[in-house]
Amino acid sequence: MKNTLTLYQHGTLALLVPGLLRGTMTMGDLLAHGDTGIGTGEGLDGELIILDGVAYQVQASGAVNIVGNDFLLPFGNAHWADYQPKKTVTNLSKQRVDRQVPKDFSAENTFFSIKITGKFSQVITRAVKKSDPPYQTLAQTADKQQLFHQKDVAGTLLGYYSPTLFDGISVGGFHFHFLSAAHDFGGHVLDFSVAQGQLAIQKFNTLEQHLPTTDPTFMKHSFDHDDIIGSIAKAEK
Amino acid sequence: MKNTLTLYQHGTLALLVPGLLRGTMTMGDLLAHGDTGIGTGEGLDGELIILDGVAYQVQASGAVNIVGNDFLLPFGNAHWADYQPKKTVTNLSKQRVDRQVPKDFSAENTFFSIKITGKFSQVITRAVKKSDPPYQTLAQTADKQQLFHQKDVAGTLLGYYSPTLFDGISVGGFHFHFLSAAHDFGGHVLDFSVAQGQLAIQKFNTLEQHLPTTDPTFMKHSFDHDDIIGSIAKAEK
Repeated sequence: MKNTLTLYQHGTLALLVPGLLRGTMTMGDLLAHGDTGIGTGEGLDGELIILDGVAYQVQASGAVNIVGNDFLLPFGNAHWADYQPKKTVTNLSKQRVDRQVPKDFSAENTFFSIKITGKFSQVITRAVKKSDPPYQTLAQTADKQQLFHQKDVAGTLLGYYSPTLFDGISVGGFHFHFLSAAHDFGGHVLDFSVAQGQLAIQKFNTLEQHLPTTDPTFMKHSFDHDDIIGSIAKAEK
Repeated sequence: MKNTLTLYQHGTLALLVPGLLRGTMTMGDLLAHGDTGIGTGEGLDGELIILDGVAYQVQASGAVNIVGNDFLLPFGNAHWADYQPKKTVTNLSKQRVDRQVPKDFSAENTFFSIKITGKFSQVITRAVKKSDPPYQTLAQTADKQQLFHQKDVAGTLLGYYSPTLFDGISVGGFHFHFLSAAHDFGGHVLDFSVAQGQLAIQKFNTLEQHLPTTDPTFMKHSFDHDDIIGSIAKAEK
């Protein structure tokens, strides 16, 4: 039976901060932990969103393509979808989701996923361009990002909420990715506004945190001088 | 097949800081995740150590007893033992273990367990006295602790190491509990020195972090004003 109460995570955003961007898990392995998720490729190769078991990559060019099981990731989240209950929302801003949804669903202190499907009056995304080794820091790499601004777009917003207690392991608050219904637009979401859509959440009681312990670069890295929280806040928000 | 690469954790030390001390998991449920572990009871009711599937409680009186499956915990770690390789050690201090073992085993950035069985020239432990609701903070509750100082004692030291990246979820560095071979002394370890013993570690690649999402007190608590890291460092080290 598929465990719908567990959020699986490979790597952590903290690992990306000093530039530990080597792909340490395959998409095939990540998909064994869920049919829904987000992530990035080796060297921050685009923004990934997994919907109904299919992994889409939004590249810095704006192109959207499906990635195969051999695709490598330094970071990814996945879970088995079981969103409920659905709720119709209109004129809903990112700010309001950030501020209200964790409270409205009494879920501020646990991990949960949010999915909004419908029509968005605007979505602003970014996608990072793949870097090659030797990798730079997250702040430097994230500077090589392309911004996209789309109005009146139908699609799916997928987000994960992490309690601030777990800053470092994740982004405290929400981390959103987007894919348009036409599969021609998406990425890591900087801002959005829902015109009309269905909102649902899925609460977890367990975070299964997997670390790339077979990667000697990770295992030997000293995090003592990395400004983890600051860099994540800057690059991911 | 039992997964020997996963460390299971119910609750986090961060939850104890503001006094979320209600028992939210039974020992029976914790033992389903391993035959080896540490923890504390509801209201910080003593110091727990699980060895070979048996859960021992060291009370503030110094008494050691076996707890049953109904015993409730606000916090616990468990894993399936598979320690290797064993190494003979002599005249080994806590300070040296803290400083050298993570480096010697190239395990500074992942979770691992350490077990030392043998003769200790000294072990200093503490055990906290159970509090009743309304619970006070960890700092206040930890003040109601009893210290024990034993020389020339045979027994088992069980520790978990957490990377500093995961401060808050755990104690960055080691968290040790001890049980004497005679089952008449033990607790949360403040200091030790091994005269002669066998040391072995078990590296994990996954932390399975379970949260007490069915406890409304936890779910409604605001951690914004809790000095998590500072309080853990003071109370647990």
